[in-house]
Formats: sequence, C-alpha cells, structure tokens
Amino acid sequence: MDPIARKPIALNPIALKPIGWVRHGVPEAGVPRLRSEMVSEIVMEDAYAEAIAGLEGYSHLFVLFWMHRCDPARYRPMVHPRGREDLPLTGVLSTRGRNRPNPLGLAVVEWLGRAGHCLQVRRLDAYDGTPVIDIKPYDPYDVFTDLRVPDWWYRITHPAGYGFGIGGTPAP
Amino acid sequence: MDPIARKPIALNPIALKPIGWVRHGVPEAGVPRLRSEMVSEIVMEDAYAEAIAGLEGYSHLFVLFWMHRCDPARYRPMVHPRGREDLPLTGVLSTRGRNRPNPLGLAVVEWLGRAGHCLQVRRLDAYDGTPVIDIKPYDPYDVFTDLRVPDWWYRITHPAGYGFGIGGTPAP
Repeated sequence: MDPIARKPIALNPIALKPIGWVRHGVPEAGVPRLRSEMVSEIVMEDAYAEAIAGLEGYSHLFVLFWMHRCDPARYRPMVHPRGREDLPLTGVLSTRGRNRPNPLGLAVVEWLGRAGHCLQVRRLDAYDGTPVIDIKPYDPYDVFTDLRVPDWWYRITHPAGYGFGIGGTPAP
Repeated sequence: MDPIARKPIALNPIALKPIGWVRHGVPEAGVPRLRSEMVSEIVMEDAYAEAIAGLEGYSHLFVLFWMHRCDPARYRPMVHPRGREDLPLTGVLSTRGRNRPNPLGLAVVEWLGRAGHCLQVRRLDAYDGTPVIDIKPYDPYDVFTDLRVPDWWYRITHPAGYGFGIGGTPAP
C-alpha cells in the first residue's frame, strides 16, 4: 500500500516552465505593505496566447508563482509567523511564509482586464519579475466559510482584540 | 520596464522536490467521481516532521501536487471543459483540467487529523501515489463570495437549470 513501494509510473519530470512574468514596478520592500491594493500585470509568454482565452469569464483567479528571490539557505522547518517573536514557533507549512520546502507562491487575485498578452490583476503579492507557472479559475467550489485558524492568525489580523488588557474576542 | 530585459536575479532554480505522497487506494478511474467525499492520507517525508507542526490549527488547507500521470504530449492550448463537446472550446488556463502547461494540481481540502507523519484529509482529487509539493493554510483572506464564472461552469454544476426547456436560473 506504500505508494513509493508501488513505484507509480510518472509520465513527466518535476520541472516547471514560466508561462508569464509579473510586472508592477513596486520595490520589493513595498510589496508586503501594498499587497491587498496592488495592481499587477502578468505578461504572458507568446506561446500561451490561446491558453488564456476565457479568463475574462471569471472575477477571481488563482495565480501560482515561483518565488525566485527566496534563498534556499533560509529554509527553516519551524518559524515565527511573519518573523514576529511574540507569535508561537510553528511549522513553516502551517504559515504562508516564503521560506518553504518548495518556494511556490499562491494568490487569489481579482481579474481587472487584459490588453493583448498582458493580464491585469489586483492582490498578487509577488515581486516584480516573478515567474508565473500556472493560472487557475477560482470558483464556488473553492469557497469555504466555516473556517478554523490558529489563535495567532487573529493576533495578526485583529490586534486590537488582544493583549494589554484591551479584551474582546477574535472576529469570526 | 520589461522584467525579462531587467534580468531579475533568481536565487533558486525552478525545480521541485516531493514533500509527501498521496495514498488512498482508489483506482484512477474512480477519483473524478468520488473526489468530494474521498479521504486521503498524505504520507509526509521524514524530513518535514517539524514543518507540519500546527497544521491541526486549521479546518482547511491548500494542497499543491504534481500531476505525475499527465502526459505532456496531451497538452492542448484550448479544450472543451471536462472533454464535453457540448461546452465551448476555451483556453486550458480557464479550466481546472489536467493537461496544463505545468501539470500542477491545487485542491482545498478538509483537515481530518494526523497519525504521526500521515495527514488525513478529505476532498483531495489526486491519484494514488501523487507527489505533494506544498501545503498551505487556507484562511479567511482566501474567501471571496461575490464570484463571476462562465456560463458553462453552471451548465456542469446545475444541469437541471439549462436546456430542454426545463428553465430556471443558475444558482449564485
């Protein structure tokens, strides 16, 4: 039953090719702060002119990208979320941090429009020049609303509800 | 301003390593039909024993996987969704189909539990033996509810609302 022992036959090697590139001109240091409002272009490679047909039918898309500026030497199995030492040390896969086993980025972006082979999107938190490796539709089957997340997640997003005796409970 | 002309400095090559493997024992032909109910294990590589700490804090996770059974020769820039010729030909990136430029799979899965280095999840629509390349938390920032999707999407999911004079409007 061990899949490795069963030696599944792979028809392709695990290697990626860029299908496009992120362009927004924002310096790297500005991206974390501006991420939710940032408008980016994805400049598609000419080879994918037909493959993007129909993206305009969606309001939201997943963009998968290769975080080409991550240094593999910075990988650590456990991290403090956002580098904040007041938040508990947790497995890197339990965070959206950059220094992961494979430096793959994933963003849900808003579709804004298209000019030829340049796609315009909002909320893509990738650095200028990042290789894009896949674009997928975001559809109603991707929506789950009754979520559980760790306490530290609310300490980042709703700081007023925590600490220093301010009281209050985390937002749902 | 062209990111290619600016030659961004990449710190890593675009190559992936499996961090775990999918195990469920369901034959490939059964996966599309059973996908929403299927329970899978992700058997993590020993090297990531610490990296998975804290996943139990989430109700839902993204799983990124390498579709090792896709044959690159089957890539087509435009496809009929689900192979159904009654649905319009559309760019492959506008579908969740398998024969994409890079055969990366993405699923939102429900966390069920963990036994040592085996994670138990529901709704992972990957074949038995598939290499897993990333796991990321799904959090409230990934939830968008006012979605637009193409008409053909509703023709797949709400067939009773279409054609043959049955009438009705697609569900929101």
